[in-house]
Amino acid sequence: MIYFNCDYNEGAHEKIMQQLLLTNMEQTAGYGCDEYCSRAKQLILEECKAPYAEVHFLTGGTQTNATVIAAALRPHMGVLAADGAHINVHETGAVEAGGHKVLTLKAKEGKISAKQVGNACLAHINDEAHEHMVRPGMVYISQPTELGTLYSLKELTELAEACNKYHLLLYADGARLGYGLASPENDVTLADMARLCDVFYIGGTKVGALFGEAVVITNDTLKEDFRYIIKQQGAMLAKGRLLGIQFQTLFKDGLYMEISRHAIALAEKIRAALRDKKIPFYVENSTNQIFPILSDKVLDILGKDYVLEYQARIDDTHSAVRICTSWATGEEAVEKLCHDLTDLL
Amino acid sequence: MIYFNCDYNEGAHEKIMQQLLLTNMEQTAGYGCDEYCSRAKQLILEECKAPYAEVHFLTGGTQTNATVIAAALRPHMGVLAADGAHINVHETGAVEAGGHKVLTLKAKEGKISAKQVGNACLAHINDEAHEHMVRPGMVYISQPTELGTLYSLKELTELAEACNKYHLLLYADGARLGYGLASPENDVTLADMARLCDVFYIGGTKVGALFGEAVVITNDTLKEDFRYIIKQQGAMLAKGRLLGIQFQTLFKDGLYMEISRHAIALAEKIRAALRDKKIPFYVENSTNQIFPILSDKVLDILGKDYVLEYQARIDDTHSAVRICTSWATGEEAVEKLCHDLTDLL
Amino acid sequence: MIYFNCDYNEGAHEKIMQQLLLTNMEQTAGYGCDEYCSRAKQLILEECKAPYAEVHFLTGGTQTNATVIAAALRPHMGVLAADGAHINVHETGAVEAGGHKVLTLKAKEGKISAKQVGNACLAHINDEAHEHMVRPGMVYISQPTELGTLYSLKELTELAEACNKYHLLLYADGARLGYGLASPENDVTLADMARLCDVFYIGGTKVGALFGEAVVITNDTLKEDFRYIIKQQGAMLAKGRLLGIQFQTLFKDGLYMEISRHAIALAEKIRAALRDKKIPFYVENSTNQIFPILSDKVLDILGKDYVLEYQARIDDTHSAVRICTSWATGEEAVEKLCHDLTDLL
Amino acid sequence: MIYFNCDYNEGAHEKIMQQLLLTNMEQTAGYGCDEYCSRAKQLILEECKAPYAEVHFLTGGTQTNATVIAAALRPHMGVLAADGAHINVHETGAVEAGGHKVLTLKAKEGKISAKQVGNACLAHINDEAHEHMVRPGMVYISQPTELGTLYSLKELTELAEACNKYHLLLYADGARLGYGLASPENDVTLADMARLCDVFYIGGTKVGALFGEAVVITNDTLKEDFRYIIKQQGAMLAKGRLLGIQFQTLFKDGLYMEISRHAIALAEKIRAALRDKKIPFYVENSTNQIFPILSDKVLDILGKDYVLEYQARIDDTHSAVRICTSWATGEEAVEKLCHDLTDLL
Repeated sequence: MIYFNCDYNEGAHEKIMQQLLLTNMEQTAGYGCDEYCSRAKQLILEECKAPYAEVHFLTGGTQTNATVIAAALRPHMGVLAADGAHINVHETGAVEAGGHKVLTLKAKEGKISAKQVGNACLAHINDEAHEHMVRPGMVYISQPTELGTLYSLKELTELAEACNKYHLLLYADGARLGYGLASPENDVTLADMARLCDVFYIGGTKVGALFGEAVVITNDTLKEDFRYIIKQQGAMLAKGRLLGIQFQTLFKDGLYMEISRHAIALAEKIRAALRDKKIPFYVENSTNQIFPILSDKVLDILGKDYVLEYQARIDDTHSAVRICTSWATGEEAVEKLCHDLTDLL
Repeated sequence: MIYFNCDYNEGAHEKIMQQLLLTNMEQTAGYGCDEYCSRAKQLILEECKAPYAEVHFLTGGTQTNATVIAAALRPHMGVLAADGAHINVHETGAVEAGGHKVLTLKAKEGKISAKQVGNACLAHINDEAHEHMVRPGMVYISQPTELGTLYSLKELTELAEACNKYHLLLYADGARLGYGLASPENDVTLADMARLCDVFYIGGTKVGALFGEAVVITNDTLKEDFRYIIKQQGAMLAKGRLLGIQFQTLFKDGLYMEISRHAIALAEKIRAALRDKKIPFYVENSTNQIFPILSDKVLDILGKDYVLEYQARIDDTHSAVRICTSWATGEEAVEKLCHDLTDLL
Repeated sequence: MIYFNCDYNEGAHEKIMQQLLLTNMEQTAGYGCDEYCSRAKQLILEECKAPYAEVHFLTGGTQTNATVIAAALRPHMGVLAADGAHINVHETGAVEAGGHKVLTLKAKEGKISAKQVGNACLAHINDEAHEHMVRPGMVYISQPTELGTLYSLKELTELAEACNKYHLLLYADGARLGYGLASPENDVTLADMARLCDVFYIGGTKVGALFGEAVVITNDTLKEDFRYIIKQQGAMLAKGRLLGIQFQTLFKDGLYMEISRHAIALAEKIRAALRDKKIPFYVENSTNQIFPILSDKVLDILGKDYVLEYQARIDDTHSAVRICTSWATGEEAVEKLCHDLTDLL
Repeated sequence: MIYFNCDYNEGAHEKIMQQLLLTNMEQTAGYGCDEYCSRAKQLILEECKAPYAEVHFLTGGTQTNATVIAAALRPHMGVLAADGAHINVHETGAVEAGGHKVLTLKAKEGKISAKQVGNACLAHINDEAHEHMVRPGMVYISQPTELGTLYSLKELTELAEACNKYHLLLYADGARLGYGLASPENDVTLADMARLCDVFYIGGTKVGALFGEAVVITNDTLKEDFRYIIKQQGAMLAKGRLLGIQFQTLFKDGLYMEISRHAIALAEKIRAALRDKKIPFYVENSTNQIFPILSDKVLDILGKDYVLEYQARIDDTHSAVRICTSWATGEEAVEKLCHDLTDLL
């Protein structure tokens, strides 16, 4: 079986494994206070063109979201997010367990707009009973979104302006950020992210690392005591250097972008094969997740060789599925899939 | 100005004030362990025909909801509720502050159905990623709802069956329960509530008391240590007898139902006056809240003498407003309003 | 039986009951946005000589403590408090339920010192692992303390200085503040409290009211959105005017101090009777709580006519008990008690 | 510099690194639902002689403690623990952030006794105000303790009996469990742990793994929905197989015990060198942490070559320090240290 269902089926990029091996018996300070973390942070800040920012390494996405939100909000504040946002749907209520409500906005292809944010804030402010309601304190977006779509620089800039206007923090979940940055349609750089967001994270787990997310904090208020919150959330890795070593490897000599482009190139091949056969898509995007709508018959046959992920039922005989590529996806696997798709469709 | 905007504009029924005065300098045990509380509980259990149940007195609705939900759910569980439910919209995220997500269902005239509950549970169970999602652990309804509508005995029975089937607790917020019980359309008794719900509360604040809600717990598991949770939630009144005295008065000689019927009779008069003039309603109901759709012009004129509550904008020249009657509403006030409405419309 | 066990055995001062009766059928805005609350706040701010401060009314002490602490601290911060502090021992973990640790200091006669606070902060700062420890964010004291002792103006000033130095908020729980202010040994005024504390509350429940505590916030940061937190904590009374009416009555024409002095005068009588007989005290103080150490034999006999509160076992044949006076204590009850004590001892 | 300050200065045992490399590009299911996790669980259950138990893998200790406690306790319950317990001192209030109070007992050499547990429970039950106090719901111990001491089988059995008697869960933090099991003084087996505890964890981070703790749950109630809580706590690793692979390696062919014995043998050498010179110990123990009391002069000289951890100030010229050995400690490093100690002392 070949797994195309998600982008975390394998271990880590071989260069990371080499570095982990090479440094394995070195003795370093714990909890991220080692030299590897320092250098990795430096490399990331350079890419972000944000020397004033802070970087922290955490292990996984849900943990990172819970930590950032706990650090950022007072108890009566909530997070504006797309209805399909990861924090709203797939984190077993970690945000609520931390005491905060997710205030959902109806997303369009996974995205929310500055206008929706502004309207939500105005509605709150203008409601006589607003003290009886959760106050919006943050906007959470994913770049790329759960559906693989991207905020354009214009959209992101407008969101940042709305956040400034209504005193909200802007937080971007970049679990798949590499695949967004590498997309042919993308016009947002890491430096833009750092300039426009109060905090965002650069995903490692899905982009070449064994695990790990790099949180970049540009907002001074949020920097204060952030490491206490990391520890409280059970998110401070004893051997923190494991994260430093991984991110140092990813951000040295452009590896992060190189492997992201690899995934995007393969995704484009699969997309082209599907387009050739006029297969419709559940949502159009240009990142590493592809959402074709296929017939049950085709899916049955594909299911013998490939693991795809069910996304949504479309009609009596069709479903949308998710096909993911990643840093680890092999050319041959993609060629075989394209070949089989062409044959089948 | 005459206030028709809500049902908590005045103090308490005169009989309650008399009892409070009469007992004022008596010395009793604190924290609800006094004789007045005991007797009030007894009277309530008799009305509920539920000798096996437990009664606890709390001060207000948000506090009661937060306490019941905290006592009932494990951390990963959420509460299924109407999207317009008080706990979802008007409690400043108290449920989330307690760590739990409100899982919203699209309500129809304020109500949710057993079918919606069943579908939500099935969707949860059948989702491969259900461990990544909040598990439904309770159904929260209001009787009457925020929009003054009522669950019929059939609907309530079906909800209770769905809850049994999917291992959910059924909790009814009865902030205005008296006005539901007194409605001409109602077919649910207090005994039905006790039989069908795992826990519900009988509202005092809006039905004759200075403050106070009587929580009736029928589910044995939920009874355990409930007073610890009350205390932890800051909801254990030092002079608990104040609640006992009030509820004893309300449940002696049928006062609770008598004053509820008074409110309903007056609401019916206002409704009749509006119907006479073919005024449409935002939602039809038979309890103490009336939601007529009136023109801006009419609302402007009414606004000189009456305080009504804005509910929703309907079109460019019309809004729905809320008119409430209560145990405290005077006949003359209602007659004046009906007269003015008839004149104006 | 005559209850001397605590100071919340009766209802409210008769003037409060009269005002509640008098205003009972008035219609006012809800949630503390009425004229009675405004006037009560004004009166309190005048007594505090703190026109810049904010006043909020809540129902009870545990609720007030939980609300103030939730509003004040970020998640990784804890509250320094005496080991016997109410928040540490008698609130069923309400502070922890809100996410914060109580960091205990060994109290001396119920009190903690500026030096202890400073040492705790220094120990935290100097510990290399301080990010792994709860950061002190607030000092909680009671004035008077649980043991009826008082912070002198000098002690309170030193605490405030230590708090400034180490960036801590100073919060005083004044559940029995009136009895402190009225004590012959006291040298701290309400204006001192307002000047030295970031936030404190003036207790009503134990000093003449049916219920109610008036929170005075002088720190600007803490003022922000405080009403949201009140609502979230289930502490916003629908008929908020009940609190306004009570505090307006207490702070008009000096009633609060008058009834507090009454309690203190009676306490002094009981103390004198005990001193006459050379009865030792568990702790010496000058407020409304008296802690004599009595023999089992004496306690047995007293137990037939009086309810006292057990405090601590002293030796094989003696226990310390608590005798409370209050605004409601009658002269005759005290005379009878003094007489019986004199006879017995 | 040679680090003897803690037991997590290096990466992982070479066999673990080999397995991670070997399996790196395999595709597996995520979130711990892979074959490596299954096999690792099987191996652990066999060692525990507890086929009925459940095993879950988490990343670190604080995370594991927070998850277990969140899963186990209702909101009003607290955890009885030694005053020096890791959850009380070094987890930035993670337990409190989850809503629960740590109820401390004065430890003797890091340990608490069944008698102390019983007394705490009796004191709670017998206090008239127990509903105003946090109810003990769990006993937390560390095996070995923070001070490297061990509970004997007799002590552990008595604790388990006290827990049964008072309806408490018994939870053992086994961050350094291997070093306890390998100690010459130890008489507690893994099977004893499984038989006597409701839940405990077998530490990997400090015993050969890059990271990872294996939670063993024997109590049926606690098993329910545990994975939801893991996810909610941000503790579910996307590439869960990393944990499975590590624990499979550790529990195959006795590697876990073998490397633990290595650490203990080296610790014994250091202890012997210190004893030879009549150096006193801050606490006597037989595991991998050694706490000698050394003079400032000696510590200064040692500080040029070795990193030790400060433990406590003993007198004007002496401090206790911690010297740790681990699976990774080299023979030569220990020989050099022993040699230098012998020279210096």
